[in-house]
Amino acid sequence: MALYLGIDIGGTNTELGIVDEEGQIVSSQTLSTKQHGGSFADYITALSLQINQMVADPALSGKVVGIGIGAPNANYFSGCIEEAVNLPWAGSSPIVAELSAQTGLPVVLDNDANASALGEHSYGAARGLDHFVEITLGTGVGSGIYADGRLIRGYQGKAGELGHIAVGEPHQRCGCGRYGCLEASVAAPAVARRAVSLKKLCLEQGMWSELCDIPDEQLTSKVVAEVALATGDSIARQVFDETGEILGRALAQFACFSAPQAFVLFGGVAQCGDLLLRPVRTAFDQALLHIYRGSIEIRLSALPKGQAAVLGAASLARERDL
Amino acid sequence: MALYLGIDIGGTNTELGIVDEEGQIVSSQTLSTKQHGGSFADYITALSLQINQMVADPALSGKVVGIGIGAPNANYFSGCIEEAVNLPWAGSSPIVAELSAQTGLPVVLDNDANASALGEHSYGAARGLDHFVEITLGTGVGSGIYADGRLIRGYQGKAGELGHIAVGEPHQRCGCGRYGCLEASVAAPAVARRAVSLKKLCLEQGMWSELCDIPDEQLTSKVVAEVALATGDSIARQVFDETGEILGRALAQFACFSAPQAFVLFGGVAQCGDLLLRPVRTAFDQALLHIYRGSIEIRLSALPKGQAAVLGAASLARERDL
Repeated sequence: MALYLGIDIGGTNTELGIVDEEGQIVSSQTLSTKQHGGSFADYITALSLQINQMVADPALSGKVVGIGIGAPNANYFSGCIEEAVNLPWAGSSPIVAELSAQTGLPVVLDNDANASALGEHSYGAARGLDHFVEITLGTGVGSGIYADGRLIRGYQGKAGELGHIAVGEPHQRCGCGRYGCLEASVAAPAVARRAVSLKKLCLEQGMWSELCDIPDEQLTSKVVAEVALATGDSIARQVFDETGEILGRALAQFACFSAPQAFVLFGGVAQCGDLLLRPVRTAFDQALLHIYRGSIEIRLSALPKGQAAVLGAASLARERDL
Repeated sequence: MALYLGIDIGGTNTELGIVDEEGQIVSSQTLSTKQHGGSFADYITALSLQINQMVADPALSGKVVGIGIGAPNANYFSGCIEEAVNLPWAGSSPIVAELSAQTGLPVVLDNDANASALGEHSYGAARGLDHFVEITLGTGVGSGIYADGRLIRGYQGKAGELGHIAVGEPHQRCGCGRYGCLEASVAAPAVARRAVSLKKLCLEQGMWSELCDIPDEQLTSKVVAEVALATGDSIARQVFDETGEILGRALAQFACFSAPQAFVLFGGVAQCGDLLLRPVRTAFDQALLHIYRGSIEIRLSALPKGQAAVLGAASLARERDL
């Protein structure tokens, strides 16, 4: 049985995991992304050493057939990480060429959102689906579009920027400089902003909410979800009701593009589960074009928390083999 | 050199054309779609007879290798035309099975929008592109999405309903019952509505426009374009400026799905050329996400008027062979 090595490159750490066909991580390691004085060459040397040690494990010997790498600003076609502001290397870093030379294994690189989508298809909530869209709700909104049995990569690998389609609140400014992007309405900072705004309204109107006891700067998406789930606080719930309604309407629009069988929600904001999922589904059902009714599910990610990135990366290598 | 037979099924006529690799129609025929008392079996018999005669032409003998059919409500996967309100047959009509049995040739069926997109790729404005989106601006707004070197069909073949994404005027009701669909803002009836509305404003404000001399019911998209092009009438031009601005902004949103190299505009509303294209490009450039800037063109269809549907249908058969 073939094994794949998944590598998730983050700003602080690089996580490595050898993954089997069932999505079990049979061996894992962590390497610092930063600890090489910003030298890409030194990082690659350390990473290759780590990989070669893992692959040489007698128990796995010869079974690891490929490496997949998920990273921010990764270019699938060039095999380079390009101008990634959160990584220590400037310019274009040819990681596929370097790693395949130093390990002798085939290497595939792609961005985190595409890796997540493939991971969901290989091991998670999208197993067996030929058509689905993965939406990552984190600091931003990422997406991976899988249609007709393949990931859509688009010209220069730039497909799947659904977070920047103007189906959010029209007057909300996005980090990209444009207005109305979905990202500006449903990513984690937008959830926090909504909580602060509803808390302010409560205070002005002399209403009570658990959120009133929490300083604005601590009202993160995660904290608001914890309050809603622990206490049932109606204002905390309303934060997710409003977020979910915008997201549900947006997903109904996106359905018209690739006619998916499912949307899979992933990332920090989706970890509150039903709190978000219920209003998403209600708004989605109301806004969906009639020809799609009854044919599209909305699911939560089914990848084990903390392993999703490595599983996604491994599935990049797996996809190449299929 | 292989030849392909393209068949375009419309409510009144069925057009047949044998097409060569360069997109030249070397033989063509027309058959009534209606003249068979609503009997699908009789229609198929007449159509097969016509096909077999065309294919048997000694000059073409043996060279026609496949049949492509473009039709409304066509299901690529089932090979059936289903519940098409503008065609005389009720229910589901298994045209692929019937025609291939009676002609001995492989038959591919798809909807008009997908056929148009493939036609543009094989013979028109999208030749050589691996990523583009065809937008058909007619009575409605159709679309065909071509990404990573193939058409995106989606679950049950229902991908590419970009006309029903809510990036038009928010309060405009669409024929689908929803609000804000692009179709309700830029299809031919919307252009006519805009002309009537601007004419009314002119009359109310005592301003003059060539449109004021034309009865409302005659103010079609085609007539307004003719007035604008013949006289330069500023109100007639404004109709297309406003339409183009909405369309341009919408296309900028659509870019985020599949990262195309081009949008190709086709159909009646696009036949006025620069009158529409100029405001589309201006709005598109302003609204586009920075990562796509400079990489996406907006083009007009390059298929000869009147032949586009048959060329598109033929390209369905050609696609199957590639």
